[in-house]
Order: sequence, then C-alpha cells, then structure tokens
Amino acid sequence: MIVVLRPDATESDLEQVIEKIQELGLTPHVSRGVTRTIVGCIGDEDRLREVPMLSFPAVETILPVEKPYKLAAREFAAGDTVVKLREAAGGVGDGAIHVIAGPCSVESREMILDTAESVKQAGAVALRGGAFKPRTSPYSFRGLGPQALEYLAEARARTGLPVVTEVLDTRQVEVVAQTADVLQIGARNMQNFALLSEAGEAGKPVLLKRGLSATLEEFLLAAEYILSRGNRNVILCERGIRTFERALRFSLDIGAVPFLKKETHLPVVIDPSHAAGRRDLVIPIALAGVAAGADGLLVETHPDPDRARSDGDQSLTLGTFASLMEQVKQIAAALGRSLATAAA
Amino acid sequence: MIVVLRPDATESDLEQVIEKIQELGLTPHVSRGVTRTIVGCIGDEDRLREVPMLSFPAVETILPVEKPYKLAAREFAAGDTVVKLREAAGGVGDGAIHVIAGPCSVESREMILDTAESVKQAGAVALRGGAFKPRTSPYSFRGLGPQALEYLAEARARTGLPVVTEVLDTRQVEVVAQTADVLQIGARNMQNFALLSEAGEAGKPVLLKRGLSATLEEFLLAAEYILSRGNRNVILCERGIRTFERALRFSLDIGAVPFLKKETHLPVVIDPSHAAGRRDLVIPIALAGVAAGADGLLVETHPDPDRARSDGDQSLTLGTFASLMEQVKQIAAALGRSLATAAA
Amino acid sequence: MIVVLRPDATESDLEQVIEKIQELGLTPHVSRGVTRTIVGCIGDEDRLREVPMLSFPAVETILPVEKPYKLAAREFAAGDTVVKLREAAGGVGDGAIHVIAGPCSVESREMILDTAESVKQAGAVALRGGAFKPRTSPYSFRGLGPQALEYLAEARARTGLPVVTEVLDTRQVEVVAQTADVLQIGARNMQNFALLSEAGEAGKPVLLKRGLSATLEEFLLAAEYILSRGNRNVILCERGIRTFERALRFSLDIGAVPFLKKETHLPVVIDPSHAAGRRDLVIPIALAGVAAGADGLLVETHPDPDRARSDGDQSLTLGTFASLMEQVKQIAAALGRSLATAAA
Amino acid sequence: MIVVLRPDATESDLEQVIEKIQELGLTPHVSRGVTRTIVGCIGDEDRLREVPMLSFPAVETILPVEKPYKLAAREFAAGDTVVKLREAAGGVGDGAIHVIAGPCSVESREMILDTAESVKQAGAVALRGGAFKPRTSPYSFRGLGPQALEYLAEARARTGLPVVTEVLDTRQVEVVAQTADVLQIGARNMQNFALLSEAGEAGKPVLLKRGLSATLEEFLLAAEYILSRGNRNVILCERGIRTFERALRFSLDIGAVPFLKKETHLPVVIDPSHAAGRRDLVIPIALAGVAAGADGLLVETHPDPDRARSDGDQSLTLGTFASLMEQVKQIAAALGRSLATAAA
Repeated sequence: MIVVLRPDATESDLEQVIEKIQELGLTPHVSRGVTRTIVGCIGDEDRLREVPMLSFPAVETILPVEKPYKLAAREFAAGDTVVKLREAAGGVGDGAIHVIAGPCSVESREMILDTAESVKQAGAVALRGGAFKPRTSPYSFRGLGPQALEYLAEARARTGLPVVTEVLDTRQVEVVAQTADVLQIGARNMQNFALLSEAGEAGKPVLLKRGLSATLEEFLLAAEYILSRGNRNVILCERGIRTFERALRFSLDIGAVPFLKKETHLPVVIDPSHAAGRRDLVIPIALAGVAAGADGLLVETHPDPDRARSDGDQSLTLGTFASLMEQVKQIAAALGRSLATAAA
Repeated sequence: MIVVLRPDATESDLEQVIEKIQELGLTPHVSRGVTRTIVGCIGDEDRLREVPMLSFPAVETILPVEKPYKLAAREFAAGDTVVKLREAAGGVGDGAIHVIAGPCSVESREMILDTAESVKQAGAVALRGGAFKPRTSPYSFRGLGPQALEYLAEARARTGLPVVTEVLDTRQVEVVAQTADVLQIGARNMQNFALLSEAGEAGKPVLLKRGLSATLEEFLLAAEYILSRGNRNVILCERGIRTFERALRFSLDIGAVPFLKKETHLPVVIDPSHAAGRRDLVIPIALAGVAAGADGLLVETHPDPDRARSDGDQSLTLGTFASLMEQVKQIAAALGRSLATAAA
Repeated sequence: MIVVLRPDATESDLEQVIEKIQELGLTPHVSRGVTRTIVGCIGDEDRLREVPMLSFPAVETILPVEKPYKLAAREFAAGDTVVKLREAAGGVGDGAIHVIAGPCSVESREMILDTAESVKQAGAVALRGGAFKPRTSPYSFRGLGPQALEYLAEARARTGLPVVTEVLDTRQVEVVAQTADVLQIGARNMQNFALLSEAGEAGKPVLLKRGLSATLEEFLLAAEYILSRGNRNVILCERGIRTFERALRFSLDIGAVPFLKKETHLPVVIDPSHAAGRRDLVIPIALAGVAAGADGLLVETHPDPDRARSDGDQSLTLGTFASLMEQVKQIAAALGRSLATAAA
Repeated sequence: MIVVLRPDATESDLEQVIEKIQELGLTPHVSRGVTRTIVGCIGDEDRLREVPMLSFPAVETILPVEKPYKLAAREFAAGDTVVKLREAAGGVGDGAIHVIAGPCSVESREMILDTAESVKQAGAVALRGGAFKPRTSPYSFRGLGPQALEYLAEARARTGLPVVTEVLDTRQVEVVAQTADVLQIGARNMQNFALLSEAGEAGKPVLLKRGLSATLEEFLLAAEYILSRGNRNVILCERGIRTFERALRFSLDIGAVPFLKKETHLPVVIDPSHAAGRRDLVIPIALAGVAAGADGLLVETHPDPDRARSDGDQSLTLGTFASLMEQVKQIAAALGRSLATAAA
C-alpha cells in the first residue's frame, strides 16, 4: 500500500501518517518526489486495507500494491487447476475444450432426457439445466424445483453426463448438492456471500458466473470466498457484462478470458447464450470465446426453443448445437487444442 | 406487446405470428406501415412476456407496452405509500425528510450507544448499524453478528430510535426481524430473490437498496417481489450505480429520484455515503438528493471514523452530521418541506 | 510514478528497470515489500508517462502519482476562477448562481427574441441558442447557421444578455467568435482536440461540456487544452454521462459537481435538460445541481416546446422556467448563496 | 413510430394525439389494449422522429419501429460492400481476412520503412501509421504531421502497401487525402459530424472507429453521415468500448461483430490493440475477432515497442506480429476463410 500525500502536506502531517503506519505494525518507507511525498508501507497490506487513511486531510490517495485475493492468484498454484466433472479422465482446465449444454430450465422429464441424449451425441461433456431459476419478475416461471433434480439425475443415469445446476439459496445447497455434480452460482448471486461460503463447503465443484457489473477483481474475490472454505474446484464463467449497449442482451467481455487465464490458475469458460440473448449470435460469440483461450462453453440448448418457458430466444436447437460443436472442433484444432470427450 | 416484422416478411410469415398470438389467448391487431408491418397484441401482456417470439425469423423485434411491475406502479395505489418506522406519528413518504443515521457496522456496545444518542440529538429519526456485513473480500471484518443485534436493541431502548439493519441470508431473516424495525436489503442482494421473498413475509418494513447495475425497472421488480408477498412497506434507496467513472466510489443517479417519485407510490431515500466514498463529498450529495425530491437520507456516521473497522473514509463524524442536518433543514424549508422529527 | 514489480522479479529485472528510469533523467527509489518490490521515480513524471514500462516482463503495473493536468488543478490558481460574461460586474464562479437559458436551436428571429426577453425577465444572465447543431442523424435539422448568429446578436442588442452558442468545426471558430460571448463546445466534441486548441485561441470564454463517457480526469485534460493556449476562461459543464440506465436520457453525475469544485479552480455548471431528456424531470435535477454546489445552470427553454424542431421534449416552457428560477432562488438562499443578476 | 398512451388517457387526449399525427401527414392507427391504448403512425417515420410527443401529458412513451439509418442498413444493398484498398484484386468485405498493421504513430522515416517491409512480409495488406495523433493530454506527443505523410508515401512506394492514416480536423482532410489510401476517423471523432461529412466527400475510403461509448445505432448513423455524402466505401472498426471494467484499457464488444454483420452490408474489422492496452492480450482478442466473423484486423506493431513514443505497451513486435498472422491463418482456415494477400 502506498500513501500519497497532498502537495501541501507538512512535515507534521507526514509524521502523523508514519505514526499510524507504525501503529499498525508496518514499516513506513518515505520517498520525497518533486511535488508530492509518498510513503510505502512494508508488511502485511491486509492490515491497512480497511484503515480509513483518507481521514488524514494530508492524504490525497491510497494506491494498493498487493492483490486482495491470494488463493485465486496464479502464483498460489503450481499449474492450472483442473476441475474434474465426475469420474472423467480429464477435467475443465486440462487444455481440452469442455462444452456443457442443456436447457435454461428443466421443463419436463421428457425434454431433459431428450436433450441429454442429443447433447451427449453432439459431444457435450456435461448437462446443464435449471431446477430453481432466478427471475427478474416474481410473476415468471421459476423452475420445477426438486422434481427437476430427479429428472436431471435420471438423465445422468442414462447418459453418464454429469449435471450442472444452479443453487439460489443457502437453504437449498444441501439438497441440490445431493444431485448436482457441479453447483452453479448465477451472476446475480456472485456477491451473495453467504451462498458462496455455503457452496464452498458442499463438497462439489462450483461453476461461478461473473456478476453483471462485477470487476474482474471482485470476480476473483468471489472465487476466493469458495476457495477459502477449502473447496479448490472452482470454474469461472464469463457471461457478459452490463454496459450502455443494449443491442445485445449483455456485452461479453472477451478480453476477460485471456486476462483471467494469466491472473488465476482456475479454469475459465464462457456462456455465449446470455450475452447474445438471441439465437443467431450465439455461435459467433462461442467461437470467439474458444479462440480467446476459454477452457469451455456453457450453452443453452432446447429441443423446441420456440416453446421454451424461459430463454427460448437465446437457446440453440439441438441441430444448431451439433453444428456449433463441429465448428468448435475446427477452431480448437486450429489452436492446437481438442474437444474434450465425455467419460465412456 | 407489439411484434415488429422485418421489411421482407411475407403474408405467410404474418399469419404464423397471428396464429401464435391467438394460441396464447390474445387478440392480434395488424397495422401495415410503409416498410414494416406491426402486430399489436391485445390482452394480458404477461402471457407473451416469456414467449420466444424472436424464434420466428420474420420477427425483427418485440416492443413491450405494459410495465412488468403492477403493485409497485404509481397507478396501483391511491396516493403515496407512507412507511411507518415504529410507533411514530408519520412515516417515510409523508412529505417530511426522514434521516436514518449510524455506523456502517456496530463495532461495540459503547460506540453504538454513543452514536444513537448523538444522531438522535441531531435530528435523526432512526438508527442504522450493521450486525451482519457483506464484504467483497472473505478476509474483511464481517460484523459482530447476533451480539450487535443486542446492542442495537439496547440503543433503541435508550433513545427510542427504531433500528434499521441489514439481512444477508434467508436463514437470518427470522432472527434479524426479531430485533430490527426495518430490514435492510443491500445492493448486492437486490436480486437475491429468495431473500426478497423471505423479507416480504417477515412482517417488517424493508429498506431495499438498488443494485449497483440494476435498471430502475429491475429495481421496481425487486420491490414487487416483496410487495407480492403481502408486505406493502418498502422503502427504495438509491445508493449510486456503477459506471465508467471511478473518481468517486459510485455515481449517484440523481435523476432516479424524481423518476421513481413519478413511477411508483413507494418512498425513495438516498444513501450519499456509499456513492461518495469519501467524507468531504457526502454533504453536497445528500443535499442534492433532498433537492431532487427524496423522502429521506441514509447516512453513515461514526463517533471516531478514523478508527472505524469498515467504511471509515466515508463516515461523517457526529459533529459533521449535525452540520448536515442543519443544512438539510434549510433546504427542506426552501422546498416547502420539513425535517421529520423522532417520536417523543 | 511508481513501478510495481511482479512477485517473481529478480535482482537483474530490478536493475534493468532502475537503468531505464535513470536513462530518463529520473531518480529511482527502491522499496522492498514482503512480496513485491516497488520503485518510486523522483523527478518530472511527465517524462515517464508515455514510456511503455509494461514492456518489461517483470513490471506488473504502473501507478501514477502526479496528476496529468497542471493549469486546471486547484493548486495552480490562488482562488476560484471567475469567468465574466460580457461586461457584467461578477461572473460564473463568483459564488452566485448563474443561469443561462434559451432554446436548443434558434428556429426563427421571433422565437429567439421572445425567448431572450422572457428568460431575462425571469432572471437568466445569459442566452443560449444553437446556430450550428450536432445531430446524431444526418437527416435531422442542423440549425439555421450564420442566420441564427445574426438573430442572436439582435437578441443580445435588445436584452443585453450575453450569447452562448456552440461551435462544431475548427473552420467555424472565427465566425462564431465574432458573435458569441461564450463559445460552447459540446459533449461529442470534448475530445476534438483541434477544436479545443482553436477555441483556446479565439479570445472568448469557453463553456466546455463533459463528454458522455469522459472521466473527470479526461474532462480536466480537455480543459487543459484550452488553458494551455492561454485562455483561462473555461466553464465546465456536467450534462449527464452514459450509463447502463436508459430510463432517462443520461445519468447526471451529481458527485462530479463537488468533486470538480475541490479538484479545480474553474467554475462548474450543470445542464439538467440533456440529462433528463423529459421536461418534468428537469427542475428536480436542476435544483439538485445547485444544492450540490454548482455555479450555475444551462437550461433549455422554448416559447412553444411542443413545436420545437429539436429537443422539444426536454425544453421548459417560459412559464415553467420562471418557476424554476423561483425555486433556484430559494435553494440558493438556503445555502447562503444568491441568484446572479444580469448586468444593468 | 408507435405512441403509447398512459392508462388514464381520455378520449379527448387520444383525439389530440391523432390530430397531431394527421397534421404531420401520417395516418394514425389506433389499437385499444386492456390497460393502454396505442397509436401506430403509418407513413414516413422521419417526420415524427423529432416531434416532441412526450409534450402531450397523456403520452407515456414513444416506440420507434423503423431504423434511423437507411444507406447503412443491410436491406439497402444487394450484398456485402467490398472496400478496395488501392488496386488490389479483392477488398475488405470480400470474405478474406484483411490485416492492416503498423505503428501507432510514424516516429521516423527509418522505423516506418522497416515496419512496412516487415508487416508486408508477414502478410499484412495495408500499412497503418499516425501522422496526426489525437492525445488526451495537450502535453503528449502529437505526431510528426505532414512529414509523416511523406514517409508513409515512401513506405507505400517501396512495398506497394496502401496507407491508412488518421485525420483529426476538417482542415486536414484535403492534405491527408492526397497521401492516404484510406482515411481513418478515430473513436473520439466518431461524432465529429463536420469531419464525417468532409471525409464523405474526400473521395477516399474511410475506416470509421466506433466511439468509446457509442451505441451500435449511433455507430451506423455516423457511417450514414459518410454514406449520405456519396461515399460508399466505409469500413467499420470495433475497438473496445468504455465500461466499468478497467483491468483492460477498453472492453472489446465482441458481440458487435456478428450483430453488425447482420445489420449492415459494410465490412467490419476489429482493433485488438486499443482494447487490450497491453501486448500479451492482443493476440487472443485478435483471434476472437476473426472467430466472431470480422473481415479484418487493425493491429499496432512497432519495430521497437519498448521505445515507442506512444502506445508502446500495446504494440506487437514485428516477430510477434508474424506469429499472430500464422494463427489468424489457421483460424481463418478452420472457418473456411482465408487470409487476404497483398496486391502483387
């Protein structure tokens, strides 16, 4: 942490700042510039992070030097974290492209069984499907709940595909974790800290979506909540941020993909469906994510999207999904990567 | 809902759209323009809200006409909703300016008792103070928890000030509601729909903060979650949105105040402290909020902000708070309004 | 400027950085922290500002300490800059609230003469009116051009009100400056650096609007362009920024007002009309600006806004404008300020 | 254009609206919904675009149906517009990937000649290089001006590469157009309408960069300014938008690429350098752009970026550029496309 003093700070102002820093058990290091004096604070920056240094009238600004996340930082781990999805050989982060597909919400037993078969056939390595749905309006369809979890379990039993499903409430974590192979935490809950902590203790990998206005630092701190509970299996998912542009539903932050790959050892996938908001833009965005270095995709697919109860506009048909997979395979090969394959 | 067809839509495309609308129990109303044909859908717009109309290749866009919130809409209520804070004569929304003040978090028994006395003396009508704190980093101070609730109850017993405190987790709602006079839902939980529903059933007024990237429509829909559970006592709080500008912590959306006052019958307060992020900008922003028509303020004050365990940089000293109150009184008078006074 | 090295930087990495800093004529000051080493650079920070320090693989980040603007910084001037509008006694920045009013564009001789009389009567100290209008679409009305300048001159001759009018193109500066008392530079031209430079040499005060996505630092640097040409008469105008919220046309950044008043000696006015985008929200936003400490207002008024050729939705009628002035007067008085009055 | 009336609008309110619409030469088409009445306006929507309909108190909102751009709309042209760069066989928009490369600014004769040779060898089809540079600070290096144009001409003479260079000021258009093969209009000038018009008449293709907070609609309207002057050779360039995220310099709006390809017949390229702001993120973003369907890239390259006078941090070395080209070639092939080759 560096404390920058105002140009008009006096020696006595400086002494007060130094005293405060020492009081916190840190060592001050003064550097006098031409117009401003700065004080570097040597020691554990965390001790200073919440100290209201701006309360000193002579302090102009504070510049943090250390990163606030530790376990999520790339330097923490020896290599890339690989998150296994069930008993498969590899896992997300192993270099291959992992595609997770399925409907926004599980609408019936038949539709989820059909979807599971189809996406498996097209090459998906996991099945997504919402049992509990977060909805902006209280009047919208909010999922079939526990019944949907049963259908998902049946789909897994038939296809072998591990199940990724969302958890919305701390009180649901236990029941969802009984069925799910991966707990999904949605964008709107990225800073639901109680839920993050609970998910960190549920013993299942977590797919964490970036909040729609979360900075990448906040995103990594949200992952840190889960990691700090002893759960090292976190998959980060970029799904579009909220910007001034409303032509598409969200603006997928493509630069976040290579940035995160440098900054953290955790695997990174993208969700092109929520960013696009409309079916015909999903494939180009998905391919862009792969080209940018993502470890996988989370894609909404539906056997009959025109009759979907939620997100129908942005869901791929099963046929279009198969075409996407073909293109992903080509792009992956061009990059010297491959498409992950489901466990036998 | 209006369905806009592409310029090249054929008669058969139009027929398909009409059929779909009729199938949903709505009446289509076709209007042929010079380049585009549009179809108005007469009936309950909610039936159409989640139908993936963009699935029809001939559909260019969908224009909603009705608002998705009902109970929060101004036309729903005969006049302004007045939210009583305990047994006081008036309430937030009655025309007077209600100021709620106190520390970011309750740090000790002594500090909350001192603060309560001081803010009461300066004219605050309620005491705020966090027992459970949402923190971006898992390594930050997260509040004293249940102990803090006891201290708040004691402060209320001494001063008569009703207590506003945050609830973070559905599992905490019951215990927090036993002490709190008003449940606060923070910005990061504005779309924690399980929490909204739970708070809607707790039998206490709710102070709902706007999410940092929530549109005003989403803000009103979050209120609708609470209202739809039978709780009509919702106070909306604008606390700054996230924009590209980082010179201040957040950008207080001042235009949201008069907009909400027109759009809804619910009372609107502002939180100048989180928007400013630094003490010396809190008062001008607070006064701006009052001038724009807010029903009240939620202000962070601390007996010794330089030693606060959270948000010290943006907390007013008790002396500065008294000065703010004096200025609010003047501005209120200039607008033909007055400062609310605490119940005797 | 502080150079932060990566945790794994070696001594040899550090030496290279030190060498580079010395090569630039600056003195390096090394501070070794627990995980990272930082190097403060003592001397003229400008020399380092454009040096690609991130090219050194061991450099993690660069933290600027000095501000990039000099002439615009508060410490540059002894007190507040007061920008005189013609021969009036006072000027914008002298503590009184200066209101500049008039139509979006000058639509006819009669309308501008009428407006000038009315706004003067209501207490405005200057007349605004566009002769050359920047329009998003090439098919929109773009102003009456030179003819409008003549009408504005006539309005000034009749009322004594100085004229504020926009200049869009470097080639127009000379002709507009012949008539205008104040040159306005619009939001979309805030980083039209050629225009800023030209306006800086035209010998007339400049009212500079903040770009719709300009940071406050960029805003002050745009002012610096004008100041650095020897023109010290710059009025800053906050007119709303572009955010994700589209319920209003723009989000007026109310916090920018007190921030700028601290950061610079230049006067600050707000334009509530463009932020609101609709008439019924203009007054609350205007009052908020005054309460936040603005030196004045720039308000769109029109004798018959329902027939205006541009911005009619957000223009006040002359009657409503008079009511706004009454309220501004009250708020100003509550703050111990007053409404500026036109030169006799 | 559809006029939506408030729920409480009376028959007489409706009549006034109808009268206004008829007065403008349009045909009103009334549709009575359950809570709101709407009026479709049949005829030329442009006539209504600037009419202040919100002035009618009974009008709640206005929904535009037609798009405000005509010449830029996909339906205007029979197929994709192909912009030829000099006498080459093909052009940008012909399906092949066109890469334009070169330094941020031309710093010396030698460096631009070297760069031109190298980028040509690596497969670039055009040379970029700034003679006149827009700079946020008045104290930054602003390019070598006319001298740089001469060097660029010499580089072209030697390599055959057409020259893309920026024009900042209407007064420079003529002189820049004498040398440049393509006029570049930068992001900060995207709504410098005088410059757009002038560039539209200069007889050279225009590479138009998206403003950093311009919506895609505004971007297409800026192109419309150029097109409406009779110049059909416009290349659109997405270069990153300004959002709340500051980890990277800008957020490249990857979804804009497929959106624009559907919405307009004009070719679309991306500039990964400005979005990334740092060298190590340029390649992944560039590849993402290609995968998303861009027609080309605009990339900053420099023979010695560590000593560049501007944008050194984000410039590729000539070696890294060659590696990028290799990867682009692979990705293009995976998509069934190819890399454009320079004219012999």
